[in-house]
Amino acid sequence: MTQQNDRRGAARNGPTTSRRAARTGRRSGDSGSREAILAAARAQFAEHGYDGATIRAIAAAAGVDPALVHHFFGTKERLFTAVVELPIAPSEAIAAALATVGQQPGESVGTHLASSALALWESAQTRGPFQAMLRSALTSEQAAATLREFLTTAIIDPVAGVAVGEDRQVSFRASLVATQMLGLAVSRYVLRIGPVAAARPAELAAAIGPTLDRYLTGDIGITDNH
Amino acid sequence: MTQQNDRRGAARNGPTTSRRAARTGRRSGDSGSREAILAAARAQFAEHGYDGATIRAIAAAAGVDPALVHHFFGTKERLFTAVVELPIAPSEAIAAALATVGQQPGESVGTHLASSALALWESAQTRGPFQAMLRSALTSEQAAATLREFLTTAIIDPVAGVAVGEDRQVSFRASLVATQMLGLAVSRYVLRIGPVAAARPAELAAAIGPTLDRYLTGDIGITDNH
Repeated sequence: MTQQNDRRGAARNGPTTSRRAARTGRRSGDSGSREAILAAARAQFAEHGYDGATIRAIAAAAGVDPALVHHFFGTKERLFTAVVELPIAPSEAIAAALATVGQQPGESVGTHLASSALALWESAQTRGPFQAMLRSALTSEQAAATLREFLTTAIIDPVAGVAVGEDRQVSFRASLVATQMLGLAVSRYVLRIGPVAAARPAELAAAIGPTLDRYLTGDIGITDNH
Repeated sequence: MTQQNDRRGAARNGPTTSRRAARTGRRSGDSGSREAILAAARAQFAEHGYDGATIRAIAAAAGVDPALVHHFFGTKERLFTAVVELPIAPSEAIAAALATVGQQPGESVGTHLASSALALWESAQTRGPFQAMLRSALTSEQAAATLREFLTTAIIDPVAGVAVGEDRQVSFRASLVATQMLGLAVSRYVLRIGPVAAARPAELAAAIGPTLDRYLTGDIGITDNH
């Protein structure tokens, strides 16, 4: 097992999972605290949303020092990532997807962004948690708020960094990117609409990439302060 | 109450609803049969999916003649529309949205399609059922299959009629349109992502219309038989 898998495995050991193999090398005191923090974080995110939950309150609910939360999980985003069992923090994935490093020669930012997202989603490790998040967002108003806040902070804000225009316009542009990518994910992985489910990732990235490019930097029909 | 509202009200009177006001003008025998048909249809769609359910089997389960099902509901699509409590059959809405009649001067097919869909979705009458369908599709594999089959027959196939290319390519093109519109609906009405939820329909249609036009008739990066 690689170090990365070990980190993922450990981070995914919430109280409701039964994967214990990855934890065999840890002291039980550590894993007890880790599980208490994850349980407290799950409850705080559910009750107060992504923006409202704080490391301080989560630590208090878990009966540990805030420094221990930072020690185990780093940022609030990575703690949330562990709670929802995503294998990678979205803002890290987005940063990589937006980096020119790794871009194919002649590949646009939009196409690279689409193909990076598809590469991530093709893994079942990402798809399950993603579907679980969408399911709870559709079932509960509070879960929808949590997912919205999380998407905004971890995905839309970084994507807005490569959009053109003043503040409100770049947020609108990044949100348009989110509509297309969210719709692609739901169509391909949840509803499995025939031609979209059957297409190769490269075909989808080629078709959708120019859409993302236009949303980020092209003409979207507004000229004033949106 | 207008005649249209009356038709809607009557069609929405499944066994689980309590809106009875719109039915006061009907004989109780009619409404009893109507409710039995809706209950049977709900069960048959849930068990066999949209493609698998038949008017004949629904009539048999309701203990009525198939002709009575046709008399009350017309087509299978309109029966499904009544079961999920949509105010209008999607294929009828799509036909109107794709018609050049009603298009603003200089408005492209894609922009007209986007603004027609948004006009429909802005009504709470459509939004509730839409959200309910998505919710069950995310919760149940069978519901996802039913929604996929229904979207394919009632929306993607008609949209494919205005796309260019041979058979497989037009289906892929229409499915790309579905990804964008589905993502827009989820982002605006379910997750309510700030800038997309706050935008005026005309702004969204202007931004998204050219995407739909390119998906339908433009360069989507494939030249061979997709």
